[in-house]
Parts: sequence; C-alpha cells; structure tokens
Amino acid sequence: MSQAKPVLITDVALRDGHQSLIATRMRTEDMLPVCAELDAIGFWSLEVWGGATFDACVRFLKEDPWERLRKLREALPNTKLQMLVRGQNLLGYRHYADDVVEAFIKKSAENGMDIFRVFDAMNDVRNIETAVGAVKKSGKHAQGTICYTTSPVHTTAKFVQQARDMVNMGVDSIAIKDMAGLLTPSATSELIAALKQEVSVPLALHSHMTSGLAGLCQLKAVEAGIDIIDTAMSAFANGTSHPATETMVAALKGTDRDSGLDLPALQSIATQLWEVRKKYHQFESEFTREDVGVQINQVPGGMMSNLANQLKEQGALHRIGDVFAEIPAVRKDLGYPPLVTPTSQIVGTQAVMNILADKRYTTITNEVKRYLQGHYGAAPAAVDKDLRALAIGSEDVIDVRPADLISPELKKLREDIGALAKSEEDVLTFAMFPDLGRTFLSEREAGTLVPEVLEPIGQGGSRPVTEG
Amino acid sequence: MSQAKPVLITDVALRDGHQSLIATRMRTEDMLPVCAELDAIGFWSLEVWGGATFDACVRFLKEDPWERLRKLREALPNTKLQMLVRGQNLLGYRHYADDVVEAFIKKSAENGMDIFRVFDAMNDVRNIETAVGAVKKSGKHAQGTICYTTSPVHTTAKFVQQARDMVNMGVDSIAIKDMAGLLTPSATSELIAALKQEVSVPLALHSHMTSGLAGLCQLKAVEAGIDIIDTAMSAFANGTSHPATETMVAALKGTDRDSGLDLPALQSIATQLWEVRKKYHQFESEFTREDVGVQINQVPGGMMSNLANQLKEQGALHRIGDVFAEIPAVRKDLGYPPLVTPTSQIVGTQAVMNILADKRYTTITNEVKRYLQGHYGAAPAAVDKDLRALAIGSEDVIDVRPADLISPELKKLREDIGALAKSEEDVLTFAMFPDLGRTFLSEREAGTLVPEVLEPIGQGGSRPVTEG
Ligand SMILES: [Co+2]
Ligand SMILES: [Co+2]
Repeated sequence: MSQAKPVLITDVALRDGHQSLIATRMRTEDMLPVCAELDAIGFWSLEVWGGATFDACVRFLKEDPWERLRKLREALPNTKLQMLVRGQNLLGYRHYADDVVEAFIKKSAENGMDIFRVFDAMNDVRNIETAVGAVKKSGKHAQGTICYTTSPVHTTAKFVQQARDMVNMGVDSIAIKDMAGLLTPSATSELIAALKQEVSVPLALHSHMTSGLAGLCQLKAVEAGIDIIDTAMSAFANGTSHPATETMVAALKGTDRDSGLDLPALQSIATQLWEVRKKYHQFESEFTREDVGVQINQVPGGMMSNLANQLKEQGALHRIGDVFAEIPAVRKDLGYPPLVTPTSQIVGTQAVMNILADKRYTTITNEVKRYLQGHYGAAPAAVDKDLRALAIGSEDVIDVRPADLISPELKKLREDIGALAKSEEDVLTFAMFPDLGRTFLSEREAGTLVPEVLEPIGQGGSRPVTEG
Repeated sequence: MSQAKPVLITDVALRDGHQSLIATRMRTEDMLPVCAELDAIGFWSLEVWGGATFDACVRFLKEDPWERLRKLREALPNTKLQMLVRGQNLLGYRHYADDVVEAFIKKSAENGMDIFRVFDAMNDVRNIETAVGAVKKSGKHAQGTICYTTSPVHTTAKFVQQARDMVNMGVDSIAIKDMAGLLTPSATSELIAALKQEVSVPLALHSHMTSGLAGLCQLKAVEAGIDIIDTAMSAFANGTSHPATETMVAALKGTDRDSGLDLPALQSIATQLWEVRKKYHQFESEFTREDVGVQINQVPGGMMSNLANQLKEQGALHRIGDVFAEIPAVRKDLGYPPLVTPTSQIVGTQAVMNILADKRYTTITNEVKRYLQGHYGAAPAAVDKDLRALAIGSEDVIDVRPADLISPELKKLREDIGALAKSEEDVLTFAMFPDLGRTFLSEREAGTLVPEVLEPIGQGGSRPVTEG
C-alpha cells in the first residue's frame, strides 16, 4: 500500500443507523437540519432510504416516503443518495411482479435516488436481475450484494462466484452485507483479498457491530484494499448498528487510506444527532447493544430476541436453548440459507415448532412449504429430500426464477387503489403495503394523518467525570 | 506469525471498567457472585484494585478496601490479581514518603495482590523506583508503565528509552497506558514493533475506547506481537472504558494469537454483569460515551467535561473554545507533561485562568509553581524559562527525585490516627486520605458506616427487534 488510495465512506445514519437502534423512527424533520453539513463532508454516498424506512414512514410516522426522498434530494444536492432494495421484494415482504419492480426503481430514480444496493436473502442472483436492470435503464448506479453467512457451502470461492455472476449482470459495484455481524477480522482479510483479485468493480463492506467486530473487520478490509466502508455518525453507531464514522475516519488519518474527511466537521454533526437521538428514547432497547452471541451459535441477535419473545408468549421460554440448537439443524435441512428477512423468520418459526411439538416437522409452516417448492429462489445447497417429500409430497418444485410465475400486477394495483392515489408513487406505496398503504392514503385524503406520539424527554442526569 | 502465541488477557471490569463508566461505584457484593466463573476463565490477570477504587470504597461505599482485597483473593484463588498504583502517589493525590510507599506495597502483597502496575504522570521513572523496589522485595510482579501521549518530544525513541530504563530498574513487564485514547492503529503498530525490538520483558497494552479506536489499536498491537491486552467484560466495556473482552476473544478466535478463552463462559459472566450494571444507573453519564474529540485537539475527554463544568460555574462556558486552544500552549510551557491525574488538573486550571484573566499567567496556581520547582519530577521537555522566572523568581528548583525531600512519615501517621487504627492497613487507609480515612475509621468504630443510597431500578423498556 505505498500509493495513497483514500477509502470512500457511505454514512448510513439516516437509514440503517436509526433502523438498527431506534426502530427506524427518525423523522424527516430531524434529518433536514443536518443535511447542509452532511452534504459538505464529501461522503461517497449517504444511505437515506429503503430497508424498513418506507414501512416505518407509512406505518408509524405518517410521512409520505416519497416526499421524504424529494426533501432529502433537495437538501443534499452534492452527495449521492443510496437506498437498500430487497431484490424482487423491493421494500415489502413478498416477491412482486417485474412491472412493479421496474416502476418502483424508475420512480425512485426520478425522485432522486443515485445508488441502489440490491440484495436477495438467498443470494440467488436471479432475484436481483430485474431490479439491477431497471437501475441501469434509469442510468443509475447498481450495487450487487453478497449476503455474508457461514456454512459448509459458503466458501470464499462461492462468494467470489456470486460476485462474478453479478459483474456479468452489469452491476457497478459489489457490497458485502454482513447483517448479523458474523465476519471476523481474519475472515474479512481472506474474503476481500479474494474478491479484489477476481473482480474489478469497487467493493463495499457493510458489517453490523452486533458482535463488536465490525470496526476490526473494516480495518482489515481497508488493508486488503476495500474501496468503500459503511459507517454511521456516532450518535447512531455501534451496538447493532455500524462502526462510528468519526472513529473510522480518525483510525485512518495520516495513513495512505486516509479518507480525507474533516473530523471537526463530522463532530459538529454528531453533536446535533446526539440531541436528535434523545427525542426517540422510548425506542431504545437492551437488544440493540453489542452481544457476541452470534459468534458463538451463528444465530443473529435480532432473531434471538424475536424467538425469545415468541417463546415467552407461549410460556415456553425455558426451551430457548433447544430452539437455538434446532436452528442450525433446520437451516441445514433447508440448504443453508443466509439468515436475514425473510429466511430468518422462516427458519426460526419452524425451529420453534419442531421443539414445542417434541417431534421435528410434525407441523410444517406454509412458508417452509413454499420455500421447499422453490418460491424464494434456489437454496445455496441441496435441501433435505425426505423433508421436501414430507412437506410437499408430489407437488411441483419450480426451478425458474420465482417472479417468472408472477403476472404483471401494476394495472390491477392501480385500479384497486383508484382515486386515493394521486400519483404513480402513491400506487407503489399501496403496492408495497396493501393494508397500510390504503390506510395511509385514505387518512391523507381525509386530512387525518397523525404520527405516533413521542414520550417527552426526561431530565437526563450528568455527573462530573474523573480520569486517570 | 507462523507460530501460535496466545494473546494474554487482563480483564479490568472490576477496576477500570466501573471506574470509567459508573464512577467507581461497584460494590464488593456485586463482584463476588461472578468470581468463581471469572476464576475459571484463564485470564492472565484480573485488575480489581487500586486506581480510584480505594477512594470510592472509603468515600462512598463505606467499605474497607483491604477487606475487599481479601475477599477477592479468597474468591479468585487461581487468578493473578492486579492493581494500578500511581507511583509515589500510591492511591492518593500527593507524593508520599518512601516508608509509606514501602509499607503500602508490602501490605497489598500480603493481602493478596500479585501484579502491581506502577505509573508516574510525568513518566519520570524515578517516581516509580520505590514502589517497584518494594514490589520486588515482596516477591511480586512489577509492571512499569509508559503513559502514552503525543508531543514534539514524545517520539517512539523516547518511549523505548523509558522502557529500557524501567527494565534496568528490574520491572517484570511493561504496560503502555493510553489513558486518553490517543493511540491510532498505525501509531500502535510502530510503537509496539519498536518496543518488541528493544525490550524482552512482556508488553501490555492498556488503551481506553474514548475515541473508539482502542479495539483497532489492540488488533494492530496483537499483529505486532504484543503479549497482553487489557479488556473489560462487555457490561463494563466501550465508551470511556476498554474494548470488550468477548469481542477481542472472538476477533482472535482461530488465529495464531487465539486467546483460547471460552466465549460461552465469558458470555455467561457478561449477562450477570449487565444486570449488576443496572443497579448503578444513577451513575451513568453522557460523558462516558465514545467521543472522537481527543483525536482532534489532544485534550482527554474527562478533562474536557471537567473544564466545561468549571467554566459553567463561573458563567464563562462561552470561553471553552479559547480554553481548549490554551491547553496545548500551557502544556508546551510546562514541557509537555502527559495529561493524566494530576497533570491534567494542573494544566487545565492554569489554562482557564489564562483565558478568564484575558492575560496569560496574571495569576499562577500554586500547583504550577510547585511543578516548575520540580516537585512533580522532571518534565519531559524543558519548561519555559520566562514562565519559571515569573512564577518562582529565584526560588530553588530541585533536580532530585521529589520524594528524596520527604521525611519518613509513617510513624507520625500511626500516632495521629491512634487507636482508631486496628491494623497497619488502617494506618495506610488514613495515610491515603487523611480526612476521609479518619471519618471512615471513626464511623466504623461507632458502627455508623452507611453506604450512599442507590436509586431504585426503573422499569427498563424493551421492544421487539427487526433485523435485515
Ligand atoms: Co444493515
Ligand atoms: Co485506565
């Protein structure tokens, strides 16, 4: 590393940061005041949209997500805006028809989006094809994504092959998405070195701090030549979020990977965002703190707490150890899918059933059946044949891209929502969330949109500090 | 690094962890329940005593600190206990006579201490001589300490020379104490590599997470061959404390520096300590969170918040920017002392005076005068001659070890406290804190020791979590 090659930084505070730490509740009104300063920093991009933000806007904040995007675009004229897209699922929870995917990407681009990070929970690249194609058609930046996970079949070679497939598809860059905090420093060195060797598009690392390792992994990634790292302004960093932007900038200052970003300017923004965070104190949770558990049993932190809640409701919290042991077994039976929405729910719920019934697969969920039929895409490894026979008998298994079987649906959606939609964007909001979207549009029509109430900020204590 | 060389770990949760995060308030009753599990882990050592813990026991907790040491010794039969000693200051705030230092070390060893980390705020090794000698006389492990700081004179060569001087003095190991979080990953690589080259005793790295960099620095230190790293169980880690033990253990798993420590066993302890931490919620503070500020202006976080409080009381908070700019100037005039208790207070208070008086050194504090007379030891660089002339005129400047001028004082202390002391340990408690110690011993005699009241634990909120 003798030649200076500044690391590029994507700050994710306005999307993944608050999604990870305060249940995606940050409001546009709290983003806009720091935008001028953020815009002046020189980030490679700002992730500000997509993921769960669309849902949270419509469900809790009663904000029009498209309006948010336009406002951010206006407030950030000099910085590329980035969003997270769940492949064929877009921002919803099922595969959409291609015409919806194409319309959604087109409208996102028109409203100001520059970079689209597109992933599929199965790492089945067919499920990101339509979205990536639509991004390219809009003349924007398509970033293909590798969902990082560990299993006997998830070798470096497999990830490299996926990267090659995505490059052949035409992506402009590739992100490694370590949603669970599974990466270790040494695994990162190996993976990034191999990818840098084999693909020439820029590489980005998105690693959650869940197990406390993400900063260490980023340092090793930077040494291995990574191009872009995802960080979050400190007020929305660490815990289940990402390494702090200021920390990583400081860590690389004066090295040949110095980002060149201005620390005092970053600190000024962070100070303001710490005040913003206080406003959302009711959404703070013990479950968002760092926990090395995922490094022990490979079960993501969010999944563990959801399962704990599920078991508690059924008065079976004492079985949680058995459920954790069952998860890897179910995952193996299903051909080792990465554990991320929706596969984490599919695997987790079936594991709970297997344990509570005291006999495995006495009951099989509809989602597992659909999964075994191929409706989520190709599993990373072969699924268990006996389980499949038990689950779906002689029913068909598809091996085409799941969305190939979905007929165009935009026209019907447009008719269904009718005059409540004032724009194509409104139709897409309804497409993402049929019930929620209709409620939102109706309330808007009636002028009755009311965001959820925030609890007042208490008097935070402060005490003098001694050092040394 | 082809040969496996497990990194050794000192866990500091029971001393520096709670000192950094909850104002040193953890009580012995909350330490003992996890001791059996801690003892089984295989830590190189557990830092459990010294620093501010002695003061906090006597002042707030109304616990006999010696009693704590004996209980911990009994509860941790298989693990080396470690303490932090402020050189000739021991655990107090002034230089003591040699007889007090010798008696204190001897009694600490007799009560169960194994490893003594001894530092001097000026890095004047003469100020640790007596303590180190006493440790060796007790047959225990003496760890010499380099207080890490940055200045034009604090070169790697200077630190290496200090290390050599301490090795010549007979220390068994050397610690780099980065109390402010000033180290960067690249600076760490350079420093550790140089020290490993030049000294053969084991090296330990103690770096606070204040600026978020300590974990990154430890990783680079490990790569450079460091022997020991200081971490804290996650419940008392991060922020102004240290990297989390579980995180660093996980980070090195499977590498040739794998610590070999058991992650599930560590997590079990951490879970219990998270519950303990709740009990002390009233001592949580915004000032203990990570803040990259020290990497910008080299002023330690604790010092910044203390100065803010000081200025606020004088209605001059708006001058804080000027004070921060004045600190490096005062530090330069004083020959670049590291900023740690007591030098941080000496420099900070004088900087405030220089700014509020609108003319530098109109008033000079007694501590600055004593400093310029040499009573804290030799400054790292020459002090400003004009300032010294202004401050002390033609008064003598000493160039001997300050404690050479302090007559034996143990006998007088013993007489002063009289029958209130039931043991030599009690005399030493009184020696450390004349007023507090007397109050403590009197209340104990009267049976009126009452620890400060803890506020009840509120109902902490928890919410379901979504990942992905
Ligand atoms: Co993420
Ligand atoms: Co410390």
